Amino acid sequence: MKKFVNNVDDILVESLNGFASAHHDLVELNLEPKFIMRSKKASNKVALISGGGSGHEPLHNGYVGYGMLDAACPGHIFTSPTPDQMIEAAHKVESGKGVLFIVKNYTGDVMNFEMASEMMPFKNATILTCDDVSVINSTYTTGRRGVAGTVIVEKVVGSLAEKGADLESCKKLGDKVNHRCGSIGVALTSCIVPAAGRSTFEIQDNELEMGVGIHGEPGRRREPMRDADSIVADMVNAILEDFELRDIKLCPDDEILLLVNGFAATPLLELYLIYNSAAKLLKTKNLRVVRSLVGNYTTSLEMAGASITLCILDQEIKENWDSPVHTASLRWGI
Amino acid sequence: MKKFVNNVDDILVESLNGFASAHHDLVELNLEPKFIMRSKKASNKVALISGGGSGHEPLHNGYVGYGMLDAACPGHIFTSPTPDQMIEAAHKVESGKGVLFIVKNYTGDVMNFEMASEMMPFKNATILTCDDVSVINSTYTTGRRGVAGTVIVEKVVGSLAEKGADLESCKKLGDKVNHRCGSIGVALTSCIVPAAGRSTFEIQDNELEMGVGIHGEPGRRREPMRDADSIVADMVNAILEDFELRDIKLCPDDEILLLVNGFAATPLLELYLIYNSAAKLLKTKNLRVVRSLVGNYTTSLEMAGASITLCILDQEIKENWDSPVHTASLRWGI
Repeated sequence: MKKFVNNVDDILVESLNGFASAHHDLVELNLEPKFIMRSKKASNKVALISGGGSGHEPLHNGYVGYGMLDAACPGHIFTSPTPDQMIEAAHKVESGKGVLFIVKNYTGDVMNFEMASEMMPFKNATILTCDDVSVINSTYTTGRRGVAGTVIVEKVVGSLAEKGADLESCKKLGDKVNHRCGSIGVALTSCIVPAAGRSTFEIQDNELEMGVGIHGEPGRRREPMRDADSIVADMVNAILEDFELRDIKLCPDDEILLLVNGFAATPLLELYLIYNSAAKLLKTKNLRVVRSLVGNYTTSLEMAGASITLCILDQEIKENWDSPVHTASLRWGI
Repeated sequence: MKKFVNNVDDILVESLNGFASAHHDLVELNLEPKFIMRSKKASNKVALISGGGSGHEPLHNGYVGYGMLDAACPGHIFTSPTPDQMIEAAHKVESGKGVLFIVKNYTGDVMNFEMASEMMPFKNATILTCDDVSVINSTYTTGRRGVAGTVIVEKVVGSLAEKGADLESCKKLGDKVNHRCGSIGVALTSCIVPAAGRSTFEIQDNELEMGVGIHGEPGRRREPMRDADSIVADMVNAILEDFELRDIKLCPDDEILLLVNGFAATPLLELYLIYNSAAKLLKTKNLRVVRSLVGNYTTSLEMAGASITLCILDQEIKENWDSPVHTASLRWGI
């Protein structure tokens, strides 16, 4: 294992200190317990709090700021945060309109956010993201996994919350966005959890893992490596089939947000090649890609690979996607 | 070699098509010859044109847009663009105040941009970036290599050009920024040039390459892998020693822009850990980090590793760094 670390036990704290220091105009770090919050507390809005295991940066710390999250609670690498983090964060950022948790559907996260929800004195609700179409149930999950679609949920709900909407409306929009998102990932190499010091899974030089999870969980199947168009077609078709299975009707000229997300080690050059392949395919299906995001937005430590997320837009989602945002890793209009 | 590609010969065109399609609101792609230009031509400003081998994305395509470049000319992977690209791009974006080339100091790039400079009908000048302190002369270079400091040059000069400054002033500011930048990189793994299909260099599981170039060129020495603080200290000290050798006096309380740049496969988690280590060290030297950038801004295909760039700010540089920018990969204030 070769990583830029001093002591494996200190990785998270040192990295959080770096993050908070680099973005001190935007965020503040609380260390006991650990959370990142906006340096300027918002007032009179639903407080959006997310969190989860570290190792997926910029998820979630990079999305704290105006128009997105109020706080993010990082667990240790690939490990859920604990309820005290969410409760303390809520005490710091709640501003009278309640707390909305955005939680990726993993057993540990769900349990810990549920405990926090029960133990905190504020009105609260939870959006559970489960956009990964590749498997039902998985190593760390009952039900579908929450992956890169979570970024879209955080952006869109963050915008609505910023406009002063109430808890119920924010929760409703978040659930809608999650419902209209589908994602699937492919791994070419494994990630290496620092504390383990070795690859999470073995994969040969001529193989890919179709449907991999963002912790290196197994996907649908191990497949022979092949050309990008063929991989991308299987990914896009898996998402579209899943929409069909869930009775989400796609109409010709439906507007799509296409997110091509890198897991880390796949060059941007290749992510744009994947984007090109996916966009061309969607066009043949009469779907219109009208919003795009290409880059490393939900990573898996140093894994090579990428995921594709399709979000079926409507006017409300599109407007809230377009509105200004100012975080470390997503910024426009400000 | 496992990459998301269809045919090795088509990587660049497919990736450029994806880039132009994802950012069609910002840029336009010209294919014969290849360049990316702003979709909305700027008027009455010095036209900034950069370019170089592909494989370093988002450099330079990701920096085309308001407040930065007017056009970028991508060569094939790790290969210089040819003069026809720069000349055609200039014809498209020149708006009466001349053309300023921003060129990383590699023999092929220098030669091709020089030919373009001589062959084009417009008044023009060139800023040659050479911020890499690790080696004098290298595999593809006479003199020092231009690396991630180039992003700072493009941002700062882009701002001044946007304000309507003339060619001489823009050239002068660019040279100043380059002079006040120092960079050094470390590789933990090699990149793989698609056409070659194998690692550019061999490196053991317990080694790092100190001073690596962004094409995998050898650096100062092969060293045993060690803790991050020790690696970062050597990097920061190498840059500071270089400032001293070049008679650039650093005074206590001098303001610094600290760029921690990932080459691709190093997780953001680790880049922030590197940032933390560098910022702490600079503080002990009474230097004040007042601007920061952390992420993959000048990459080397799928290489694991990172570079550190220090830019000594002054009022003019700081103001032009802070001004609005709207490109695919750097955006604020808009």
